[in-house]
Amino acid sequence: MRVLVKGKSREVRSIWHEGSLNIIDQTKLPHKLVFQKLSTVPAVAEAIRTMRVRGAPAIGIAGAYGVAMAQKPSVAAKLLKSTRPTAVDLANCIDEVMSVPPEKMLSKANEIFERTISACKRIGEFGEKLIGKNDRILTHCNAGALATGDWGTALSPIRFAHRNGKGVFVYVDETRPRLQGALTSWELLNEGIGHKVIADNARGYLMRKGEIDLVIVGADRVGAREGWIANKIGTYEVAVLAKENGIPFYVAAPLTTFDSKSLENEVIIEERNEREVLEIQGKLIFPKGAHAFNPAFDITPKEYITGIICEKGIFKPGELGRLLLLP
Amino acid sequence: MRVLVKGKSREVRSIWHEGSLNIIDQTKLPHKLVFQKLSTVPAVAEAIRTMRVRGAPAIGIAGAYGVAMAQKPSVAAKLLKSTRPTAVDLANCIDEVMSVPPEKMLSKANEIFERTISACKRIGEFGEKLIGKNDRILTHCNAGALATGDWGTALSPIRFAHRNGKGVFVYVDETRPRLQGALTSWELLNEGIGHKVIADNARGYLMRKGEIDLVIVGADRVGAREGWIANKIGTYEVAVLAKENGIPFYVAAPLTTFDSKSLENEVIIEERNEREVLEIQGKLIFPKGAHAFNPAFDITPKEYITGIICEKGIFKPGELGRLLLLP
Repeated sequence: MRVLVKGKSREVRSIWHEGSLNIIDQTKLPHKLVFQKLSTVPAVAEAIRTMRVRGAPAIGIAGAYGVAMAQKPSVAAKLLKSTRPTAVDLANCIDEVMSVPPEKMLSKANEIFERTISACKRIGEFGEKLIGKNDRILTHCNAGALATGDWGTALSPIRFAHRNGKGVFVYVDETRPRLQGALTSWELLNEGIGHKVIADNARGYLMRKGEIDLVIVGADRVGAREGWIANKIGTYEVAVLAKENGIPFYVAAPLTTFDSKSLENEVIIEERNEREVLEIQGKLIFPKGAHAFNPAFDITPKEYITGIICEKGIFKPGELGRLLLLP
Repeated sequence: MRVLVKGKSREVRSIWHEGSLNIIDQTKLPHKLVFQKLSTVPAVAEAIRTMRVRGAPAIGIAGAYGVAMAQKPSVAAKLLKSTRPTAVDLANCIDEVMSVPPEKMLSKANEIFERTISACKRIGEFGEKLIGKNDRILTHCNAGALATGDWGTALSPIRFAHRNGKGVFVYVDETRPRLQGALTSWELLNEGIGHKVIADNARGYLMRKGEIDLVIVGADRVGAREGWIANKIGTYEVAVLAKENGIPFYVAAPLTTFDSKSLENEVIIEERNEREVLEIQGKLIFPKGAHAFNPAFDITPKEYITGIICEKGIFKPGELGRLLLLP
């Protein structure tokens, strides 16, 4: 992705391995671009848990390198898997690294990294075809290069459409409580893509006014057997509103985000600390003594999903079982 | 309403006239309870515009007193009406005060004040019947005593149900961008009513899990001819999600909030400063250079509204035309 460093555009990745694992610390964005070296397994676990690195594919990559750098890979695998329960990439990528002998783990992690980024690029190429000239696209959370290493999932088609001169405009919902919309806005500003931030409450208003042509979001888990997706809390709201207003709702995710086994009722929805809702930047915004309920994800069933964009093409949610059997 | 002042419960109103107009400054809540005297028409206009006093019935009352205290009532009426365009109570109450001779304006404003509070109490008595034992109720924005002088609209039935021992539990959505959920949480804490704050994004998740039995919201304008309501941005999202999940969606509003003339396409939706989205407590939460779109209200058409609770009873949105002809 392109980032502006002191006014100059530079190509960077949000996670990479060069001697050791490095990330962009997403908790410092959008105000400061800070790179962080993660040299130990506990440091990787902490970075995932506190969302310094976040986004299903990115934490999958971080988990893969975390296991590869461990002296006791099976202990590391257990610790790293426990950090966040909902995104399946973490478990998928860790299992894949664990399936090779220790001396091959680093090259397996490198393979996962490069494969994820290629998958995101392919998602962009496929997804770009869904975007018309001057389309106004709504996205939720951050499914950009920060969340995937490079390109992004939901943002990849938007990047391609922009680079192909389609004049896209993006409505970025702020995605409370963690305000990942600020990360998306930061990526779009860096890329020069026209956009406006909106409160999560304003999505329905824009849709009903006919101001949204297309919705694209990412996913933390694609339930391939039943066709649902688990994604950032609020995704279900966006999907219901899109369907009610006749707007196509697409999900972009690489195959590492696919879960070929779990049924919807088997998915653990992470509940995070209530302070994420009650405070902003450490300052209390609700009355002292108030409590909050803070689920981090929700499930969107297949009837709301127009299509799923992955590195093999664009599929209806009901076709995913078949997709998993493709070579 | 009951408020806790230094640990002691005290009965107060959020707006009252005693020599001069007084309000609770809602921009200082939920952290500080500050009363403010408004002695001049420009001070009333400023308080409405900046949302020190907010909520359709409360700004109606403030506008009525503002005109009554003016040396040039017609100039004051014009200024005060211009402060906020969407809530119809402001224009309705100002017109009502303007319809009497200058020497009767203060007593007319007093009459509007007392009538609004009585209406809210009646709304509570009627609406309480909709609430079952241990019901879990979702509300949006603040439609409490702060918004109406006393009792509230949406919160009035909840107060009555609580006082009658029904064991209600309230999910308070935070209502970005202005976080009026904090005002609702403050009122519920003062009253000892069990509740949790949720991100606006978590409403759909709770509904789909079967955790919400009933939705009650207030209104800024009830379009009696067509059966729609205009209310705080996000109300339409809540209503669509409620319908999709088979959950009753009620709107509570006194007759001063009714608009017997306007069609939906004639309503002006106020757009407020983008900084309300981009900043929280004066601190930038989005990247420097980002812009926001900030509509303050949306329209919910009648097909999503189960019923409208007013001081005359509970009505279907299609029955409102008839209601206006009642004695």
